[in-house]
Amino acid sequence: MLVELKQPVPSDIDIAQEAELRPIIEVAKGLGLEEDDLDYYGKYKAKVHLDVLAKFQDRPQGKYIDVTAITPTPLGEGKTVTTIGVSQGLHYIGKKVMTCIRQPSQGPTFGIKGGAAGGGYSQIVPMEDFNLHLTGDIHAVGAAHNLLAAAIDNRLTKEARWSSDYLAEALCPDGEYTDSMRKRLAKLGIESEKPSDLSDEDKEHMFRLNIDPYSIQWRRVVDVSDASLRNIILGLGTANDGTPRESGYDITVASEIMAALAMCNDLADLRERMGRIIIGTSRKGGLTHVGEVEPITAEDLNVAGAMTVLLKDAIMPNLMQTLSGSPAFVHCGPFANIAQGNSSIIADRIALRLADYVVTESGFGADCGMEKFMNLKSRYSGLVPNCVVLVCTVRALKMHGGGPKVVAGQPLAKAYVEENLELLEKGLPNLLQHIENVLKFGVPVVVAINRFKDDTDAEIALIRQRAQETGAEDAVESTVWMDGAKGGAALAETVVKACDKPTNFKFLYPLEMPLKEKIETVAKEIYRAGSVSYTPDAEAKIKLFESMGLGNLPLCMAKTHLSFTHDPRIKGAPRDWTLPITDVRASVGAGFIFPLCGTMRTMPGLPTRPAFTDVDLDLETGQVVGLF
Amino acid sequence: MLVELKQPVPSDIDIAQEAELRPIIEVAKGLGLEEDDLDYYGKYKAKVHLDVLAKFQDRPQGKYIDVTAITPTPLGEGKTVTTIGVSQGLHYIGKKVMTCIRQPSQGPTFGIKGGAAGGGYSQIVPMEDFNLHLTGDIHAVGAAHNLLAAAIDNRLTKEARWSSDYLAEALCPDGEYTDSMRKRLAKLGIESEKPSDLSDEDKEHMFRLNIDPYSIQWRRVVDVSDASLRNIILGLGTANDGTPRESGYDITVASEIMAALAMCNDLADLRERMGRIIIGTSRKGGLTHVGEVEPITAEDLNVAGAMTVLLKDAIMPNLMQTLSGSPAFVHCGPFANIAQGNSSIIADRIALRLADYVVTESGFGADCGMEKFMNLKSRYSGLVPNCVVLVCTVRALKMHGGGPKVVAGQPLAKAYVEENLELLEKGLPNLLQHIENVLKFGVPVVVAINRFKDDTDAEIALIRQRAQETGAEDAVESTVWMDGAKGGAALAETVVKACDKPTNFKFLYPLEMPLKEKIETVAKEIYRAGSVSYTPDAEAKIKLFESMGLGNLPLCMAKTHLSFTHDPRIKGAPRDWTLPITDVRASVGAGFIFPLCGTMRTMPGLPTRPAFTDVDLDLETGQVVGLF
Repeated sequence: MLVELKQPVPSDIDIAQEAELRPIIEVAKGLGLEEDDLDYYGKYKAKVHLDVLAKFQDRPQGKYIDVTAITPTPLGEGKTVTTIGVSQGLHYIGKKVMTCIRQPSQGPTFGIKGGAAGGGYSQIVPMEDFNLHLTGDIHAVGAAHNLLAAAIDNRLTKEARWSSDYLAEALCPDGEYTDSMRKRLAKLGIESEKPSDLSDEDKEHMFRLNIDPYSIQWRRVVDVSDASLRNIILGLGTANDGTPRESGYDITVASEIMAALAMCNDLADLRERMGRIIIGTSRKGGLTHVGEVEPITAEDLNVAGAMTVLLKDAIMPNLMQTLSGSPAFVHCGPFANIAQGNSSIIADRIALRLADYVVTESGFGADCGMEKFMNLKSRYSGLVPNCVVLVCTVRALKMHGGGPKVVAGQPLAKAYVEENLELLEKGLPNLLQHIENVLKFGVPVVVAINRFKDDTDAEIALIRQRAQETGAEDAVESTVWMDGAKGGAALAETVVKACDKPTNFKFLYPLEMPLKEKIETVAKEIYRAGSVSYTPDAEAKIKLFESMGLGNLPLCMAKTHLSFTHDPRIKGAPRDWTLPITDVRASVGAGFIFPLCGTMRTMPGLPTRPAFTDVDLDLETGQVVGLF
Repeated sequence: MLVELKQPVPSDIDIAQEAELRPIIEVAKGLGLEEDDLDYYGKYKAKVHLDVLAKFQDRPQGKYIDVTAITPTPLGEGKTVTTIGVSQGLHYIGKKVMTCIRQPSQGPTFGIKGGAAGGGYSQIVPMEDFNLHLTGDIHAVGAAHNLLAAAIDNRLTKEARWSSDYLAEALCPDGEYTDSMRKRLAKLGIESEKPSDLSDEDKEHMFRLNIDPYSIQWRRVVDVSDASLRNIILGLGTANDGTPRESGYDITVASEIMAALAMCNDLADLRERMGRIIIGTSRKGGLTHVGEVEPITAEDLNVAGAMTVLLKDAIMPNLMQTLSGSPAFVHCGPFANIAQGNSSIIADRIALRLADYVVTESGFGADCGMEKFMNLKSRYSGLVPNCVVLVCTVRALKMHGGGPKVVAGQPLAKAYVEENLELLEKGLPNLLQHIENVLKFGVPVVVAINRFKDDTDAEIALIRQRAQETGAEDAVESTVWMDGAKGGAALAETVVKACDKPTNFKFLYPLEMPLKEKIETVAKEIYRAGSVSYTPDAEAKIKLFESMGLGNLPLCMAKTHLSFTHDPRIKGAPRDWTLPITDVRASVGAGFIFPLCGTMRTMPGLPTRPAFTDVDLDLETGQVVGLF
């Protein structure tokens, strides 16, 4: 460990600032990397060049471990702490390990108190950099996202003013097409060498995108929790100030670009994904006239190249370290409901060539993040996981058994701080359903019990017994928050054993399955819904997307993580209920269709006393204070 | 030079990508810096730690050279090219030189074609990094700016809902004040140790900011040219989505935070400036009830500490290099009308301890950027310039003499490509007024003639003769765009001589002069207006600001750079005209009052064919293509 363990455990930032970090070049050299493989960002962070993949292509791939969790309480069950902790544990028992983790949004960091770099003696450091700009990747995503947004409104306004002759002349001042324009010609099936050989009709079709303003799904983004931007009217003013219309802002990590960046395999793949992004449709017809509207893409707006240029550094994963001094990649942070909620494929792919064990984390509970890890991320990466670590706590299981409500900022009820085997037993079905779900993908599962000080040995034993009965390799307690690396050693030993088992990995559904069947497969197999209902909007969208040739995309279910169902109040492992699909959307750049099970919040708000209230610089030392 | 010179001169990006750059550590070592003084950002960029100032405090200060220009055509007269070029020239003649330059906004880079890294054989490299994210400073400014914006709307919404008892409890959950809150208590003159000892009236005053929504001057920012965000309505939706009101976006470099970052001397100064930012006033009364409204600051919103934390890396200047391999600081890029338009004080200050000659650039013409360099930047830095380089072109002088309109993208009229001494003679008063203006500050001035291929020797000789008669040290031609370092050698020799002269530096006005007198001093001495007029709004604001104790701030005149007057169509050196002051605003964080002479655009738009249309990645080489 880079820091001496103390009792009681100090605050996260105090631990992190006390640690004596290894220069990142040392961490990199331990992986076989050289200086020329890195772009330093200060002494303790570096971006790793993508060409190391080619350099190390003959190395065997390491074991691939996904950390997920049961359905959590609103407090979270320590999934990130355990992800980092099991890595520190593997390092402790002498394994060559790498951690892959998501970069958090700055919004919640300054909004609702709560760290994202792990906690206690299980953290990624420097924790300030981790929680702030890091190397600017989220800002780059925001810049690319908002450039596309500006391109949309600019095109709307210019097209409203100009003839197609003028547009053709302005867009092709030298009488030549750009590569983007040639792609649009191909999509429209127009054969043309130069704008001058176009018929009037083809010129109109080629240069007037005719975007339906009401179809525009592409909002703007900012990496601040700013509720007052959720719904806005923009384009007010005079003729040069755009076209008035309703729109709004999401937080940057909810951007489809973040999802696409995390999902891509290399720069060429990213460039393709940027071009494919659908921002809305043309005006010819509406949802009821399937086949008559044309999807409008970033490529049609000639901006996908510039967007990729803005992301050319962000595509490289960021090398940091754990409090054990072991290497960690921090890369991408897509939302876990409207997107895949997993860190980047590129980071995992590189890590698997650099280390013998790669520990990666999926967002939310296993019904959300892990299902997407398997059906989405592994599908696009082609990488097969060797083991799943399923984090649970006695507290959360008691809640699922019918325990009192758990509310952030309020003291825990008595049931949670005293032994109560009956309540625990009632809550166990939630854990067991998650175990069964992992096994459906053909991957061994190890349960990690994130043990709190009031948990009793009898409670731990009960969880272990039932987990083993249901097919888990084992259930092992973890005390990494308090004990650091040593507290994760036993868990690490079990994970090593699980990784030595043969896997029989399979997806839950084939891509060619119709969208509704895919939805029903996830709903019934993972959530255990009895049936699925669709709003007329959702039905229409499914037809529209299938008519556009998007029916073969995998799914990204947008559902609450606080329940197996769509209703966060329903705990445990319910059966015979109906999952309502309220809307269906397409993230074609990211590469999935996302059915919405209820309203997903994509822009957080601030409490009356935002977390920024405590944050300041100590002007004597230059150190950050008050960052949770 | 890091690149071999070719004829005809290739495109800027081709030159830049062909150059064989020195590793930035070598550049740094040439300045006496060590690895521990730097945070690398890749191999060719580094941030320099602020503590090098203390480390090198005993070194003598270098000579301080400000590069400015005559009133330009809309094409620009090569001020940045000459700034970099005179540095390359000084390097060529064996001097230890450093260039300090502004970081450009990404908005125009992707909007209206035009490079900002210099051009031809006079550039800062790598030019892609210079023109894109660089090290994320502009993004950091945006994050801090938008965090304050979110804090404002959050407070408006929460105060509309809660009693002052609730607000007190929510803001002080542990019954204690934060440091920010103690500052507000002091400002209000309330003596209190804990919230519990406040009277009801004091509690209301302390915890209810009572912001007048119509007074809010703090807009939001984004680093994209997005005209449709100029005017928006935000806060639409439900009770949790904020309070509906009109607002809008500026481009990030127009943020007061950018101006404050460029103006501060260290972290403690920056922290103070963040706290002083006035976002609007309280609701008690209006502009006509001077003294009854209370300015509301970022400190009142308890967010100034977090804003400073977001800027803790951005405050460090970025070390890059010229095409000669000589060192350059690229740091901050405040607007040149509503802000000071000069790169950072911190960069200049450090550079002056590292090099014998420091070449820094002021935005716009000398009536704008240079006047602010002297009266604003030098006032806050305490640094005294040794020489001003005033850039002019034969083309611009002919335009001032009554030549045909110069329009970007259109071929130049005949008058500009043939010898025309009469037209040139008529335009010379513009140059001569600028020369006289520099001399009013007691600083020697060297005229740099940025020579184009069609300029004749007789034209150059005429400029030289008249410049010398008016008091310039000399007027020397520069061909750095085509010839690189060698083309700036003669200019560099003249600058060295000018720097050896004693200076008699003085400000144009003392701080204690009333605001109106300051305005009139700049208007008459620099612009040569006959008189100044004020709108009733402007009069009221002046009274308001003086009543708030802001009357002793220096001025930052917000005026077009395309004329000595407020009207961009009026060329030459007019006399006996009236300067209209339409409004007056305060940037207290940046440290100035800015009178508006007409409408200043703070959010650019996009043309029908934005520059992003050509930008893409070459997927074979990974290199950027199409970036002007």
